[in-house]
Amino acid sequence: MSEALQGERSQARPAVVSVPFEEWMRQHQFKAQSLIARFVPQVHPLVPQLHEAMHYAAALGGKRVRPLLVWAAGECVQADAAALDRAACAVELVHAYSLVHDDLPCMDDDVLRRGQPTTHVRFGEALALLAGDALQALAYEVLTPDNGVAPALQARLCALLARASGADGMAGGQTLDILATGSAINGDDLMHMHSRKTGALLKASVLMGAACAGAGRDPRAAAQQASIDSALETYGEAIGLAFQVVDDILDVTADSATLGKTAGKDAQQNKSTYVSALGLDAARHLAHALRDKAQAALDTLPAAQCASSQRLRDLADLIVLREH
Amino acid sequence: MSEALQGERSQARPAVVSVPFEEWMRQHQFKAQSLIARFVPQVHPLVPQLHEAMHYAAALGGKRVRPLLVWAAGECVQADAAALDRAACAVELVHAYSLVHDDLPCMDDDVLRRGQPTTHVRFGEALALLAGDALQALAYEVLTPDNGVAPALQARLCALLARASGADGMAGGQTLDILATGSAINGDDLMHMHSRKTGALLKASVLMGAACAGAGRDPRAAAQQASIDSALETYGEAIGLAFQVVDDILDVTADSATLGKTAGKDAQQNKSTYVSALGLDAARHLAHALRDKAQAALDTLPAAQCASSQRLRDLADLIVLREH
Repeated sequence: MSEALQGERSQARPAVVSVPFEEWMRQHQFKAQSLIARFVPQVHPLVPQLHEAMHYAAALGGKRVRPLLVWAAGECVQADAAALDRAACAVELVHAYSLVHDDLPCMDDDVLRRGQPTTHVRFGEALALLAGDALQALAYEVLTPDNGVAPALQARLCALLARASGADGMAGGQTLDILATGSAINGDDLMHMHSRKTGALLKASVLMGAACAGAGRDPRAAAQQASIDSALETYGEAIGLAFQVVDDILDVTADSATLGKTAGKDAQQNKSTYVSALGLDAARHLAHALRDKAQAALDTLPAAQCASSQRLRDLADLIVLREH
Repeated sequence: MSEALQGERSQARPAVVSVPFEEWMRQHQFKAQSLIARFVPQVHPLVPQLHEAMHYAAALGGKRVRPLLVWAAGECVQADAAALDRAACAVELVHAYSLVHDDLPCMDDDVLRRGQPTTHVRFGEALALLAGDALQALAYEVLTPDNGVAPALQARLCALLARASGADGMAGGQTLDILATGSAINGDDLMHMHSRKTGALLKASVLMGAACAGAGRDPRAAAQQASIDSALETYGEAIGLAFQVVDDILDVTADSATLGKTAGKDAQQNKSTYVSALGLDAARHLAHALRDKAQAALDTLPAAQCASSQRLRDLADLIVLREH
């Protein structure tokens, strides 16, 4: 994270946070990596190519923002650790599958992701397609272990993930994106698209983390659940949108080396972005306004949760102030 | 179903079956159609193309063998009707998505399915890919309603479906199929491939139907669950394999009009099949032996379940004796 980010970070609330954010983030990014390596099937002599493609695709994931959101929301509600780890892994597997399919020739036709050949370039289109399909199924497998996570919580996590990734969520948003490429669309339509394409899964990450409080929760806290859910939903929506706005800004302002992907690709593909719809300054203003909205939503949490929301605040800063 | 099939059907056990099988089958095929129409999102002005592609893909499903297996297994254990309907629909949505992806140019490159243009021919590759992805997510959405199905049962159904459709199941089998195309493989490898590619989901259909007994089950019956599961697993494996053997036989013996797809395609694509591996007579013998194995497994069910297993017996006959 940059010095600028450090300086601009919002004021800390009275929270019990023992490790600096960057250290926490590194630890949890590593944890995400380990969980994925653990849950993606070991390379088996029968279908080694599929397993290798799945590992490759899941390793291309990058910053692990979605798992970080799951864990941050979980800290905020003292969630069950085993459930939280599985939720974090599952949401990242869905994200990974979506990148593989998004990069295919019939979609965005991308050959590089984070400086590496995309999965279909490395393994061929058929295996990339199947690896994506298998990663989606694996997400639900990870969420439904034989034991260790309360069955009702398993069902709730599956429900949140499925709603966020299907036709009303990510897949619907990707469709809007594909259909809109090459034609100018207005700010409202952009928002419709992005609230689905990237927003839905980011919001689901927050809600899945919060749902993991279910099992061992203090009954008094359970009564506050509606207020917690509502605050975290507002937070999740705001940072979900902010994430995309910042992506659009970086596509214009950053260079390819920093981004790890081709900069300026949106303009090149004649894609509508927040920058093309609003201009660079207004897009920057919007990103900061969304961060403020996210932080304000956390202020409305019940006292105990508000005091444990520092990681969510840090992540809102990270999303808006990142440089790649 | 043919006259021959009627004649060859195995002897009825003492069962309470009020409607002839073919009537039951028609009713439940219609029910599958209605449920799919109900659960696939209504065409919405924002992304009509995606919803239309999903409806189109789900309507191309054909005989609805998997939902029929869910309902038949459910009858056998007096399962909860609402859960059963959702399980039947979910498994068919996964089947439908797999057909859409299987037909894509980078996979089997099929332009016709059941005499209709395949989804990508009708809607383009990008929409077909996304419709498939969204159908997979929808399956888990259907399994996890806010109410009406016990949460623990929701989790169990998600677990069974996810395991059957991922890397160790359907997607793994499709990978083996793609990799084996053009090279001769032996009978054992064929069995490995098909037990995953088609067998896993057919077996899961039976187990999902049986799982729906969970909620209101007589505690005495619960004690018999292991024996029920084991019998139905053997049944499911046998009919799963039989299904593929018969597919391979029909590819050689039936004409395209009867099949609704191009006959002789396996040989044309130089695919290994049970017919190419074993010869036509031995393949036919294997199919019948598998039907006998499936029926024998049902004979080992506890008395109450055995008495309600007629639909499962009928379906084993249907799978082996069908002409398309």
